[in-house]
Amino acid sequence: MNINIILLEAGIELVPKEIVNHPSVVKNAKRRKKKPEDTLLDISLHYHAMKKLENVHKRGRPDIVHQALLIMLTDPMIKGDFYIHTIESKIIRINPKMRPPKNYLRFVGLMEQLLKYGKVPLDSNETLMEVTNLTLEDLMTKYNLALLSEKGEKIAPEELCRLGDNWILGIGAFPHGDFSEKIQKISKKIYSISKFPLETQQVICRIFSACNQILGWP
Amino acid sequence: MNINIILLEAGIELVPKEIVNHPSVVKNAKRRKKKPEDTLLDISLHYHAMKKLENVHKRGRPDIVHQALLIMLTDPMIKGDFYIHTIESKIIRINPKMRPPKNYLRFVGLMEQLLKYGKVPLDSNETLMEVTNLTLEDLMTKYNLALLSEKGEKIAPEELCRLGDNWILGIGAFPHGDFSEKIQKISKKIYSISKFPLETQQVICRIFSACNQILGWP
Repeated sequence: MNINIILLEAGIELVPKEIVNHPSVVKNAKRRKKKPEDTLLDISLHYHAMKKLENVHKRGRPDIVHQALLIMLTDPMIKGDFYIHTIESKIIRINPKMRPPKNYLRFVGLMEQLLKYGKVPLDSNETLMEVTNLTLEDLMTKYNLALLSEKGEKIAPEELCRLGDNWILGIGAFPHGDFSEKIQKISKKIYSISKFPLETQQVICRIFSACNQILGWP
Repeated sequence: MNINIILLEAGIELVPKEIVNHPSVVKNAKRRKKKPEDTLLDISLHYHAMKKLENVHKRGRPDIVHQALLIMLTDPMIKGDFYIHTIESKIIRINPKMRPPKNYLRFVGLMEQLLKYGKVPLDSNETLMEVTNLTLEDLMTKYNLALLSEKGEKIAPEELCRLGDNWILGIGAFPHGDFSEKIQKISKKIYSISKFPLETQQVICRIFSACNQILGWP
């Protein structure tokens, strides 16, 4: 079964210039023997430094992307086109063959390499993740975007398995709050699978579970 | 809805005595300004040191427990009695009100404190996790154990939601391989929800999704 997914406004980026000299950023980078600008922004490490940044409630959350990818990329039956749209509007294409590192620190190292060099692994014919030069608008010439939001139209998760290959599910990869206006405008549908706000990985988990149930003895 | 769960043979323990002086263990502890014996065994950090340990394929995987707890403890509708049985046969009781740290490093810090002092937080009336002095046999005087294993009897996940309060679902929290003989012997049932081997968090995710579907508009 094929389900296309894009994680939207994901708080995954390298430490931005404005705070690259902040003591907490420098200290954490030094501990890992890396340059500050080559390390991932992480609110659990850089909370104080991040206070001055714009849009801070959606930033510095690589853990959300990690959780989501662990669910998306370990399902034995569900494949599809998988993308990450970052808070900086980068579009990352994910090879469905990728198996994300289970360990968070290794995942962080991998994403740092991806964001610095544009793809991982560097030394292989088969790219597992790459930063494309696509915009969200480019992608939407290929797919219809169905956002998942607790404010959307009520739908049973199994219905989402049947949308078809020209649809892509847009799932917020930020801790709370709404999608940006821009994203809401380019969406074709907004659906809700629960009256409760769900975490990113819970949304994926429920959709994948429902689709597996359709497949019978999953 | 109530579902009791015990994560079984979880690879979560402090660095054992045999390898407490191994250079990789000492170095990692120093970087975190901790004593080696106060740090969590983690195969992604201590791979070389761990080679000599017994039962190594089930040890050093706090990430599996972290993923599982993130799914178990964020569900808005599903509560129950939650336990972790560790590879050292410790039984940890988890307060369903607990919200595990999303960040892996913070989770590691919390589990180190739990395994060193026996409970967390130390300075509160309300314990969120505690190492009990129970044995698995003690627990089984209260519950019937239903193991989840791909070798078990085929069952639809929604059936597991209806087992009742005197049952507890036993889910392996190790990367692969079988439950120990001892655990298989004390189980009352062995069920399978998929013909594929599933990861710990996937098993929980599918059961919780099925139970939420039963509840209607979840």
